[in-house]
This record gives sequence, C-alpha cells and structure tokens, in this order.
Amino acid sequence: MPHCIVEYTSNLGEDAQIRPLLKKLAAKFRDSEGVFPTGGIRVRAIRLDEYVVADGEADDAFVNVMVKIGSGRDPAFKERFFGEMFEMIKAHFEPVFETRSFALSMYVEEADKDGSYKENNIHARLKHQP
Amino acid sequence: MPHCIVEYTSNLGEDAQIRPLLKKLAAKFRDSEGVFPTGGIRVRAIRLDEYVVADGEADDAFVNVMVKIGSGRDPAFKERFFGEMFEMIKAHFEPVFETRSFALSMYVEEADKDGSYKENNIHARLKHQP
Amino acid sequence: MPHCIVEYTSNLGEDAQIRPLLKKLAAKFRDSEGVFPTGGIRVRAIRLDEYVVADGEADDAFVNVMVKIGSGRDPAFKERFFGEMFEMIKAHFEPVFETRSFALSMYVEEADKDGSYKENNIHARLKHQP
Repeated sequence: MPHCIVEYTSNLGEDAQIRPLLKKLAAKFRDSEGVFPTGGIRVRAIRLDEYVVADGEADDAFVNVMVKIGSGRDPAFKERFFGEMFEMIKAHFEPVFETRSFALSMYVEEADKDGSYKENNIHARLKHQP
Repeated sequence: MPHCIVEYTSNLGEDAQIRPLLKKLAAKFRDSEGVFPTGGIRVRAIRLDEYVVADGEADDAFVNVMVKIGSGRDPAFKERFFGEMFEMIKAHFEPVFETRSFALSMYVEEADKDGSYKENNIHARLKHQP
Repeated sequence: MPHCIVEYTSNLGEDAQIRPLLKKLAAKFRDSEGVFPTGGIRVRAIRLDEYVVADGEADDAFVNVMVKIGSGRDPAFKERFFGEMFEMIKAHFEPVFETRSFALSMYVEEADKDGSYKENNIHARLKHQP
C-alpha cells in the first residue's frame, strides 16, 4: 500500500502528461511523514480507448484516480493529505480544464485488513541502499 | 458520478457490440429523472486479452459491468433503475447467449462520500448549450 | 463469482508466466469443495504499461491480485482458502522474488448482495457435459 490507479481517456493524447502525473503521485505518497512506506507505493495508469461521456455529443475527456490504502489511518491526516493530493492533480490538469470539457475525480478507499495479503522485497532494497 | 466500467473478453469479437452497449448505458443513465446528472456520466470498456473462465476447457466468454454511484440514493429507485439496466444489458447480449457459453454480471457500489473528490466543467458546457 | 483480476507490470516480461498463473488460480477456485461453482469462475489479467513503483529509481515490478466473491462465506473457510491461494501465488513468483525487487499483493472483497446481478449459461454447459 498504497495502490493508485489512474484511468484516462485516450482523447487527452499528449495533454494528459500521464508519466509526469504518475511521478508526482508517487512523490506525494513518499512525502507523507512515513505514513506510506516508500516500498509499498504502486502507481499505475490505464488508458481507455472505448468510452462514452455525458451526452456523448462532444469530445469530452475524463481522468479517474482510484487510491486504495490500508485501514486505520487517522481521519484528519487522510483529509489533509488527500485534499492536497487532489489539489496537486487539479493543478496538473489546469491546462486541460482551460481548453476542453473535462471531468476529474478521485476516490480513496481502505482495504479490509482481513482480506489483505502481501509479500514485498522492495522494502529490503530501499533499506540497504547507500 | 456515475462511473461505469464494462470488462469484456476479447473472444466475443464483433459480437460484443461494445460501442453500442456503452451508448445504451450512457443513455440509460441520462434517463434517470435527474438522479444522475448528465455531466457526470462516464462509461468505458476494458478489453480483456488474457483470461481463464470456468473449467478452462471451452471458449467461454464473459462481460462484467461495474457501476459506482454516489451514496444516499433511494433504495427503491436503485432497485428499479438497475434492474432495468441489467435487463437492457441482457437484451443486448441475447444473440450471444443463444450461440455460446457466456457469463454476464453487474455490480453496483456506492462511493464513500468522505473519500470522494471531483472537479468537472462538463456540467458548464451542457448548461450553456442552446 | 468468483471474479479475479491479476494486474502485472510489463517489465516482468516472460518471467511473469501470467497464462500459467491464471490457470492455477482457476484450478484453485475449482478445488473449493463446491464453495465456488465452476461456471462462475472468471480469472483475467491486466497488463500495466505505465507505472511508478516505490522511489521510482529502480526497475521494480509488482503484481496485484483482486478477488471478488459473493457475501456470506464462512470466515474460517475464507481464511484457509485464500491463505492457501496466496501461498500458491507466492510460490509461482519465487523465481521473480529471487532475482529482482518485486511487490506482490492480494485483496479479497465480498460483493454487496443487493447490488449484484447475473445471468450465466456456462453452468448449463458444464451440467450437460459427459
């Protein structure tokens, strides 16, 4: 944890700047005062090629960010942290909002602890780095 | 909201008629007596190229529809509306059911309000249209 | 049910052995003493081409398995069955763990019965087989 999936419609083309966005998202998770261990950060994008948005009449675009975190984080921390994250994402897409019809959304969910399984040797790599 | 993701196995080929299905789904959401604002409708498909179905012995196909809506809608409305939506999807795939082994499913979930973030200028486009 | 989605980063290449993994997962669901009917098993993979993992500095890889099952299964059964499933997945990726930085995770969720819809003629195919 955290897991973060960024869905984006292909009509955004180069304007989406998806790779830079994924980097910013991972950096934001790292900058969490240790709440999210670096070795658990997994951010990825899914490009959507088939979609219908709103009335289907215009070339509307959208981006949807789905975050899954472990349960039990402090509610005040979550509100502040993910509020900042969404402001960061909005800023990333400011040029898109200025030039086209666009819907941006983000959902943060907690994983059920009982149904969570993991094995990860990235933590070890990070620990042993100079 | 609503978000709607249609997963479909690639062995359906042209028989899936995915683009027409996405259009029907978006139209159904628009036809909701204002419960689902048009500007928030985002329907997309994900094509599956790697899968194993049932006993893995036949060329079985499946379609899975995942809907996410805002919380707090009337339970009776939801039961009626999504019952109608599933009947519509079943009718769409009637030719598929008649000719092959096929599993169809739909899941409707509500987003947790506390973890939901959005920014959308499509509503504004729709408002200012003639 | 069950639904099972395997996300994997494309940098795993042939080492992921995704097709064999999907087959093993489907076989494990079939080997559930009837808890999971064979006709409802739908296992698929989603290949990820755009991602940032951990500190973004190394060529880290990950696999994330998302399982959705019907509600109401016995907690002790779930703990045993999915514990075994995760051990099986770990064993599958043992060669990967030995050679690179890699994060493996699995999440098991129950679908809300009220929001679940299905139609499936694969059960009938299986019943009428010799």
